[in-house]
Amino acid sequence: MNGAEAVLRTLTGCGVSACFANPGTSEMHLVAALDVVPELRGVLCLFEGVATGAADGYGRMAGRPAAALLHLGPGLANGLANLHNARRAGTPLVTVVGDHASYHKRFDAPLESDIEALAGAVSGWVRRAARPADAGADAAEAAAAAMTPPGGVATLILPADVSWSEGAEPAPAGAVRAPAPVPGEMVGSAAAALRSGEPSVILLGGAGLRRPGLEAASRLAAAGAARLLSETFPARCERGAGIPAVERLAYLAEFASAQLAGARHLILAGARRPVSFFAYPGQPSSLVPAGCQVHVLAEAGDDVAGALAGLADLVAPDARPLPQQPGRPALPDGDLTAENAAAVIGALLPEAAIVCDEANTSGLWLAGATAGAPPHDWLTLTGGAIGQGLPLATGAAMACPDRSVIALEADGSAMYTISALWTHAREQLDITTVIFSNRRYAILGMELDRLGAVSAGPAARSLIDLSRPGIDFTALAAGMGVPASRAATAPELAAQFRHALAEPGPHLIEAALPPAV
Amino acid sequence: MNGAEAVLRTLTGCGVSACFANPGTSEMHLVAALDVVPELRGVLCLFEGVATGAADGYGRMAGRPAAALLHLGPGLANGLANLHNARRAGTPLVTVVGDHASYHKRFDAPLESDIEALAGAVSGWVRRAARPADAGADAAEAAAAAMTPPGGVATLILPADVSWSEGAEPAPAGAVRAPAPVPGEMVGSAAAALRSGEPSVILLGGAGLRRPGLEAASRLAAAGAARLLSETFPARCERGAGIPAVERLAYLAEFASAQLAGARHLILAGARRPVSFFAYPGQPSSLVPAGCQVHVLAEAGDDVAGALAGLADLVAPDARPLPQQPGRPALPDGDLTAENAAAVIGALLPEAAIVCDEANTSGLWLAGATAGAPPHDWLTLTGGAIGQGLPLATGAAMACPDRSVIALEADGSAMYTISALWTHAREQLDITTVIFSNRRYAILGMELDRLGAVSAGPAARSLIDLSRPGIDFTALAAGMGVPASRAATAPELAAQFRHALAEPGPHLIEAALPPAV
Repeated sequence: MNGAEAVLRTLTGCGVSACFANPGTSEMHLVAALDVVPELRGVLCLFEGVATGAADGYGRMAGRPAAALLHLGPGLANGLANLHNARRAGTPLVTVVGDHASYHKRFDAPLESDIEALAGAVSGWVRRAARPADAGADAAEAAAAAMTPPGGVATLILPADVSWSEGAEPAPAGAVRAPAPVPGEMVGSAAAALRSGEPSVILLGGAGLRRPGLEAASRLAAAGAARLLSETFPARCERGAGIPAVERLAYLAEFASAQLAGARHLILAGARRPVSFFAYPGQPSSLVPAGCQVHVLAEAGDDVAGALAGLADLVAPDARPLPQQPGRPALPDGDLTAENAAAVIGALLPEAAIVCDEANTSGLWLAGATAGAPPHDWLTLTGGAIGQGLPLATGAAMACPDRSVIALEADGSAMYTISALWTHAREQLDITTVIFSNRRYAILGMELDRLGAVSAGPAARSLIDLSRPGIDFTALAAGMGVPASRAATAPELAAQFRHALAEPGPHLIEAALPPAV
Repeated sequence: MNGAEAVLRTLTGCGVSACFANPGTSEMHLVAALDVVPELRGVLCLFEGVATGAADGYGRMAGRPAAALLHLGPGLANGLANLHNARRAGTPLVTVVGDHASYHKRFDAPLESDIEALAGAVSGWVRRAARPADAGADAAEAAAAAMTPPGGVATLILPADVSWSEGAEPAPAGAVRAPAPVPGEMVGSAAAALRSGEPSVILLGGAGLRRPGLEAASRLAAAGAARLLSETFPARCERGAGIPAVERLAYLAEFASAQLAGARHLILAGARRPVSFFAYPGQPSSLVPAGCQVHVLAEAGDDVAGALAGLADLVAPDARPLPQQPGRPALPDGDLTAENAAAVIGALLPEAAIVCDEANTSGLWLAGATAGAPPHDWLTLTGGAIGQGLPLATGAAMACPDRSVIALEADGSAMYTISALWTHAREQLDITTVIFSNRRYAILGMELDRLGAVSAGPAARSLIDLSRPGIDFTALAAGMGVPASRAATAPELAAQFRHALAEPGPHLIEAALPPAV
């Protein structure tokens, strides 16, 4: 068989069953091979950033990689921003980039570019397949690299002549190591800190935000041994009624500092040291309070939940986790605001929903409004590269066809990868998209205000204004085959959200908020 | 003043008057500085690929750089594909990438990434500004690098603390060298080849496709000294009635080989050696016929027109250029096809139009149909990274507000950067977009067919199909504030195209073609 078929057969053998694709000429043999490898489902995306964001959403929910099939350097470039988010999420993901035939590269044809340089910026593993005989093994290594805990982006560059040449064969899946057990002395060291009686915070991240980790951590909180916080932007957090709740560290450094104030011990459980998202003049980059000692209990690739359970067994052997009590906001009345929109979503969020949250400033009230809703998963913007939400929802819905996916999107962010809606329609994915339309890059308005001495005039204000012209998201959705409606009041949003959840397939609701000021 | 203001003041001093922007927090001081540097017009784009494509279109038409203002590594990543096209076009363009404050980088905040690696893939010049005192000089060098013939992408990485710190000052514009005169011996060597009487082709590219170069080359053709061809994807070609016409080298290698067949001498005048766009099994990468000698008359950064004039003075001193005769197709009747759509455009193309051509397979008939139209400029997809056309039109219209801009777009390509329409509406640019909607990646259908032995089944065919669901471009345009209509017959297209040209501001026409097969 040719290299293309061997790569696809190897990937399916490694558990890859979805391929989000925006292919070109150099990938045509891979595309053709999809017909002889039906175990791999090709999903067409109209832009590479949709394909990579979808593969991220798939990997976060399935716990195994999807493939993203991209065309040469420019195709990879278009997919990089969401690969950056996937890298920060620790998502298992295999990127397959078709390249020119190996002998063609020295001719510097128009699409020639430095693919390795681009891939290296987002990938933990990069290889250029050198010959058909090795292509299967290369693909197996890519899948294994992607699955190495906590998960990562592995990029396989596949020259067209390796794809089309015969003499290849599939390789068996490689062994993938489990998350590393945390040595007893690290658990003991964290236990000693907690036993000091000094104020302590456990910062949870990665696998620590799934139910087993949350329950173990909750025992420690119940025993009064530590306060719990979640990293600011988790890849996937299980939450809702019956699951111990954990507050997220705030995005703004001043609020995050207040959350961490007074802590003498900061225990990292799958999370990284907290740092300010951006730097500001005169403000420290690190959010660790002065005089606070940092203890690494478990890194992202470790057995975070096991370490937390071990720590709880040592420090709070008799404590029980504190599950979140069920509870929903009442359905609100009145003109729509970000606050009552959140209440509507909290009131109606279905059990086992997957929420892809890129609501940004409009999402301020979402955490509170949904805290006691039935159990659900919450996926956030891990790397800060906006344009993630609609693609992420695509992949999550492909990975979990029996669950409702809710994409909560800021208007500005939605426009980066708006063509994801077309894939929602094409695959008839059960995704309800709510666009929080305040017609402004509101977060930048906030940042402009924070500049302090620098006064922002009309030229600057104009660069964060999305109202000239206003964007009609219902028209955009309809143009791509997604039924859409607009809500200007809370009851309208409730009625439309209910309808969208009840009906199969994708829907979009434009939540017409007051203009951000 | 702070570094941000010094950079902007320096750029305006270097002739930069437009800044296509999709900024974020790390660029807020640059955004704020726009109010004190009103000579630099900020133009908001909803996606970075629109900003970079617009800067490309601006630079191609203005002959001086626009700036593209981008946010950190992911923002640059989103702009890379159109920077790739700009690099291939030799467009003068200054990319300003805001980065984290220098002291913040080691904390590996969520948006941290390897900006230099990304920038290096598309830029001829990259620098990270190290301190406010040098920021002005860095900006001046960036502008000079962008203007070095033939023009190129210069990327200035500006850490936030360099932007916000005081102690900076503008730097004067640096000297920019003119295109290099071609030494007499190179002209003489080409002249000897043409005087041999053996079949010769002059391949024109870059500045050789502007009127002075075309007229000089035409004298050689008129004297029977050589046939003329244009590079396949020119950045900007002047053409139409009164200007010598030159056929473009075909995209498909088999047709290009036929055009070059029999040549014993190939004279490169601002063009690169012709190579196959993609590699195919058993096909050569080089398009230079066996036994054909290649002579470099002028490289892209040389005085191409001067070299051609010198060559004509030597070989064809008495010959006169052969201007294209005026002539337009008759307005056709019947259901719309790619062929009669081209006739409509040729029949109505206004004088001094700027055509941004990303019509791909649907554009096959455009060259013939517009050859005798009034003089106009034709801008093509130089680097093969689709998603260029609508952004390119944005920048061309900003650079030339008194000219009609026509964006001829394939449906598949349009979707990569569709949000450019919003900037068309916001700036009320005089752009008429025609979407050639055949509901297929038709070029990939052709490539699948060319695979030969490999038979493409339903899974493969599905990955090039844009009909499920069909995309309603009139709805997309209306959603972003651009008046739109759909044409199903040639007379409908003619009426709508006329109307769009007569009315100021942007318009979009969806040309509903028969489905590509």
